[in-house]
Amino acid sequence: MYLCFDVGGTSVKAGIIDESGTIIIKRKIPTVTGDVQAMVSRLQEGSSTLCEEAQISKSAIKAVGVGIPGFVQEETGLITKAVNLGWENVPIADLLSVSLGHPVCVINDANAAALGEMWRGAGRGQKNLLCLTIGTGIGAGVIINERIHNGIHGLAGEIGHFRVRPEEGRLCNCGRIGCLETESSASAIAFYGEEAVKQGKAPLLAEALKRDGEVTSRSVAEAAVQGEEAALEIYNRSAYYLGFALSNIFSVLAPEKMIIGGGAAEAGNLLFTPLIESFNRFIFTDVKGEDLIVPALLGNDAGIVGLAYLAHTVA
Amino acid sequence: MYLCFDVGGTSVKAGIIDESGTIIIKRKIPTVTGDVQAMVSRLQEGSSTLCEEAQISKSAIKAVGVGIPGFVQEETGLITKAVNLGWENVPIADLLSVSLGHPVCVINDANAAALGEMWRGAGRGQKNLLCLTIGTGIGAGVIINERIHNGIHGLAGEIGHFRVRPEEGRLCNCGRIGCLETESSASAIAFYGEEAVKQGKAPLLAEALKRDGEVTSRSVAEAAVQGEEAALEIYNRSAYYLGFALSNIFSVLAPEKMIIGGGAAEAGNLLFTPLIESFNRFIFTDVKGEDLIVPALLGNDAGIVGLAYLAHTVA
Repeated sequence: MYLCFDVGGTSVKAGIIDESGTIIIKRKIPTVTGDVQAMVSRLQEGSSTLCEEAQISKSAIKAVGVGIPGFVQEETGLITKAVNLGWENVPIADLLSVSLGHPVCVINDANAAALGEMWRGAGRGQKNLLCLTIGTGIGAGVIINERIHNGIHGLAGEIGHFRVRPEEGRLCNCGRIGCLETESSASAIAFYGEEAVKQGKAPLLAEALKRDGEVTSRSVAEAAVQGEEAALEIYNRSAYYLGFALSNIFSVLAPEKMIIGGGAAEAGNLLFTPLIESFNRFIFTDVKGEDLIVPALLGNDAGIVGLAYLAHTVA
Repeated sequence: MYLCFDVGGTSVKAGIIDESGTIIIKRKIPTVTGDVQAMVSRLQEGSSTLCEEAQISKSAIKAVGVGIPGFVQEETGLITKAVNLGWENVPIADLLSVSLGHPVCVINDANAAALGEMWRGAGRGQKNLLCLTIGTGIGAGVIINERIHNGIHGLAGEIGHFRVRPEEGRLCNCGRIGCLETESSASAIAFYGEEAVKQGKAPLLAEALKRDGEVTSRSVAEAAVQGEEAALEIYNRSAYYLGFALSNIFSVLAPEKMIIGGGAAEAGNLLFTPLIESFNRFIFTDVKGEDLIVPALLGNDAGIVGLAYLAHTVA
């Protein structure tokens, strides 16, 4: 059995997973930000609670996998920086292995989700994958030969900053313009939704804004499904740029699958149909987007499943 | 010692290379196209001649490496297609191992050159590299963890078809428009040189055309060095698109080095200065083009050196 903690800015997904990748039990634990020792204690309590509830003895746990939203030195288990947790240079693997009495391996959370999709999700049986998460930002785990490829300074898979509009477009958090993230992320979709409301082009979205106090990628999707032209255009445009980026990424990596997860992927065919169309329009060879581009299957469980895979290869 | 044949459409670079990557002897052998058996015999003769001239006994050869310009099944040593050789489904590894009496490993020629640059060239000591060859077309060897990453159908590294002008640009051999190859290859530079002559913008190039009967990337480089504005612009433009593509490829792979070889790289700073400038303009992070983008060091020897590396890891 493997004990897995997929740490997020507000909560930790915690679970016990067996050798076959089956989730025995899972729970959410609130994250403690800033105070590292308090967080370690909370994970220790969480570990005991999970084992009790699942009636698993502590000795049945072979290893612990931890996913962190930040920069991870995998060999040492040191977190050099995790902005959302308020951590800098935290030797989390050492702290947790003392506290829990198990070997601990640590990895970036997006990479954990990528390994999860490879092991038990949409990339099952494949060795070379690109696993995108489209949420507030866009990130990807690059898997080559069943292993995460990190690249120098851990920068591989930073495809949110793939430039799709080299000489124009919106300013990105990175300080440049025209990054994929500024066109195809969930927050970009919400931004263009708000713009459409301002321009008086989107009555359904305007209602949603009044109701919810904000426009989200989900409200744009709902308006699009109800036939609002402006909302539909926003998804088509987002898919156009994503398809352009993926066709170019294919010419570099030629992965077996490109797996799309995260909030924006919940829009389903509203995203996937124009995305595959755009990919097929741009791709230079006779591979087909419909065979390559697939939705992620594990949702929020991808992280803990991937952490079990990692713990299982390490233990 | 390793016996290496880097097979091209007109000649074979043949060499004997020792364990440290030093070339003991090298020769050129004319290629026989079409007739596979005649080609095998010629390589067998070549092998004997090389051993004799270098005074090396046949038993000192541990393995043979062969580079082929075409699609190679590396596990079996079968060439599924090599247009320039007129080969289809040729089990070249089997044929040569019977004929030469040594184990034979076969790889695509661009990948052989990439391994050569990693072992003894500009990528020495690195594990993750992109090795571009810019000639008539543009291809790249992708090295991850000291091994060639081929991708599905061997399509990884086909960055000649990275789309740099998604909605415009010239028609590419692949049937699409705006591919990197149509803007930054040696033949693209020659094409734009001819255009400049037609438009009466390039008197020096016009002279070169009269003298040589054609415009080449080299004559454009020579005119640029002599101060011809139109020729300089062609190189700047070619470098702009290449820098754009490389900055985006970096966001996917984050390799330790991006090594540029092939005919167009011979232009030196005429290419590299604006290339690095373009890369730095587009890249989202604080990595510097001047640290990443380097010229290939081994020239035409990269192939046989890489084949020795391969033979050495296999034997």
